Amino acid sequence: MQQLVSDLVQGNRRAAARLISQIENDDPEKRELLKDLYPYTGNAYVIGVTGAPGSGKSSLVDCLLQKIRADGLKVGVIGVDPTSPFSGGAILGDRIRMQEHALDQDIFIRSMGTRGSLGGLARATREAVQVLDAFGKDIILIETVGVGQSEVDIVKTADTTMVVLTPAAGDSVQTIKAGIMEIADIFVVNKADLPGSEKTVTELNLMLDMKDMGEWRPPVHPVVSVRGEGIKELWDALLEHRRVMEESGKLYEIRKERVRRELTEQVEYLVKDRIWNQVKAQISLDSLLENIVLRRKDPYSTANEVLEEINFFGEGQ
Amino acid sequence: MQQLVSDLVQGNRRAAARLISQIENDDPEKRELLKDLYPYTGNAYVIGVTGAPGSGKSSLVDCLLQKIRADGLKVGVIGVDPTSPFSGGAILGDRIRMQEHALDQDIFIRSMGTRGSLGGLARATREAVQVLDAFGKDIILIETVGVGQSEVDIVKTADTTMVVLTPAAGDSVQTIKAGIMEIADIFVVNKADLPGSEKTVTELNLMLDMKDMGEWRPPVHPVVSVRGEGIKELWDALLEHRRVMEESGKLYEIRKERVRRELTEQVEYLVKDRIWNQVKAQISLDSLLENIVLRRKDPYSTANEVLEEINFFGEGQ
Repeated sequence: MQQLVSDLVQGNRRAAARLISQIENDDPEKRELLKDLYPYTGNAYVIGVTGAPGSGKSSLVDCLLQKIRADGLKVGVIGVDPTSPFSGGAILGDRIRMQEHALDQDIFIRSMGTRGSLGGLARATREAVQVLDAFGKDIILIETVGVGQSEVDIVKTADTTMVVLTPAAGDSVQTIKAGIMEIADIFVVNKADLPGSEKTVTELNLMLDMKDMGEWRPPVHPVVSVRGEGIKELWDALLEHRRVMEESGKLYEIRKERVRRELTEQVEYLVKDRIWNQVKAQISLDSLLENIVLRRKDPYSTANEVLEEINFFGEGQ
Repeated sequence: MQQLVSDLVQGNRRAAARLISQIENDDPEKRELLKDLYPYTGNAYVIGVTGAPGSGKSSLVDCLLQKIRADGLKVGVIGVDPTSPFSGGAILGDRIRMQEHALDQDIFIRSMGTRGSLGGLARATREAVQVLDAFGKDIILIETVGVGQSEVDIVKTADTTMVVLTPAAGDSVQTIKAGIMEIADIFVVNKADLPGSEKTVTELNLMLDMKDMGEWRPPVHPVVSVRGEGIKELWDALLEHRRVMEESGKLYEIRKERVRRELTEQVEYLVKDRIWNQVKAQISLDSLLENIVLRRKDPYSTANEVLEEINFFGEGQ
């Protein structure tokens, strides 16, 4: 096992930070590192927190951090902003507030932004969760700004997903995006001291009552995160969802599905790596590309020819 | 050649609409259709229009449509909203205004949203451009809401990209996202009758002067799209960019790069298709997945084992 992973497993914060940077930079050693730390993962419970900008996610996460620490659990936070190309620092507006936790050795906070692509961000988030899991965190919170499909992809990594709304007009229950509705295990109506909050809670409950939810009907929790109100009840709901997920076997199912996606990606990574090495060694793509640009060939038939050329389909074909 | 493609090439609107729907639905026939229409593509000039919500992209596109049609050119518009799961209809707020062009047979307007993933949306947009190109459009406008990395991926399909700003405080030049700055070939300061518009133009120009831009230094065009002011100058700038791109050989280079990505994707599609067919036929993944969930194995080594099992690495390995 490599030194960095061994340091991580022993609780070295700098090792955790360095590993996440290597993941973000798509370091060539990355796969080897993730392989080494894999046996130490699988213990953390992962909670996704998503909601529109201004819904008070950060102060909510702040409150949850205090509650989780008061229960004696170790916690990691990954703040993900799909709209920002920056990472490593304080990208989410009020991340600075979290600095107050900086001296607590059992809290680890990290922000991530899009470097290359959104697909890459979802992958980096998954891998950062692996790092914090092996690092010994009991709970990992993934906080992401809600801007569409991107956060849906990101929260797929979570065991339990909270969607945060506010009573403000713009967040009217009618405007909740289709994809968001389906990922929510728990709804939080934050800033519940604002006018209209009871109406928002009622509307959400009505909407949820109309749907067939299976074994888990998402509860709706009013919270005033700046005053810490409703946090205990919310935490209890999170624990309850976890218990139901574990007892029904659902947690095992979603984790197996996640493993299936991971194995699929790894298989495809190895395949692509080998195929392109063979192509580069045997074929000059330049004249093929020129022929496609000039419409003498099309990319679909040419793809077939390239693979025939490296004998990918085997002798028998 | 299939009937649908032959109808498309002859200018049948319903064929165009149906082909784009098949692309969006990832129809199994899709690749065959794209292959058949490929020889008819490569003639359209593709212009990307991006900017924050509220920057008046739609009315700007509206004005450009009128100008392009007045010049006797045929035009297609693809409206892309990465934050919306809907498509086919009027997703962008004021798309309805465009209905006034509905009777003009030489204008084709289509909206697209995210179905599955953002990666899928960028691909579907590229393929819809191919359809409209084969359909005989001279100019194709891709209009996308600016929400981060997603629109950067989408405008990669464009030959020329316009970034639309407004003089409003929130769009201050300082807040332009890094990625957006780099994709702009032309800046439009829309709503240029609002206070602060000259300051925005000046700031943009100062910022552009500080950078080394190579052979093309993006111009900044003040426009009042609701009154059609500045549209002629903007259109001339678009034509000028196209001319410079063509004469410098840059257009050929970016189109070749685009073909390279397309060929790469097609090769990988064929490879994955075959590999997973072999895996499914020869290996029961279920027990492997269980072992990975239980941390008896890791996904990285298992990926290798799966490929050895189907003899992907060949006899010699």
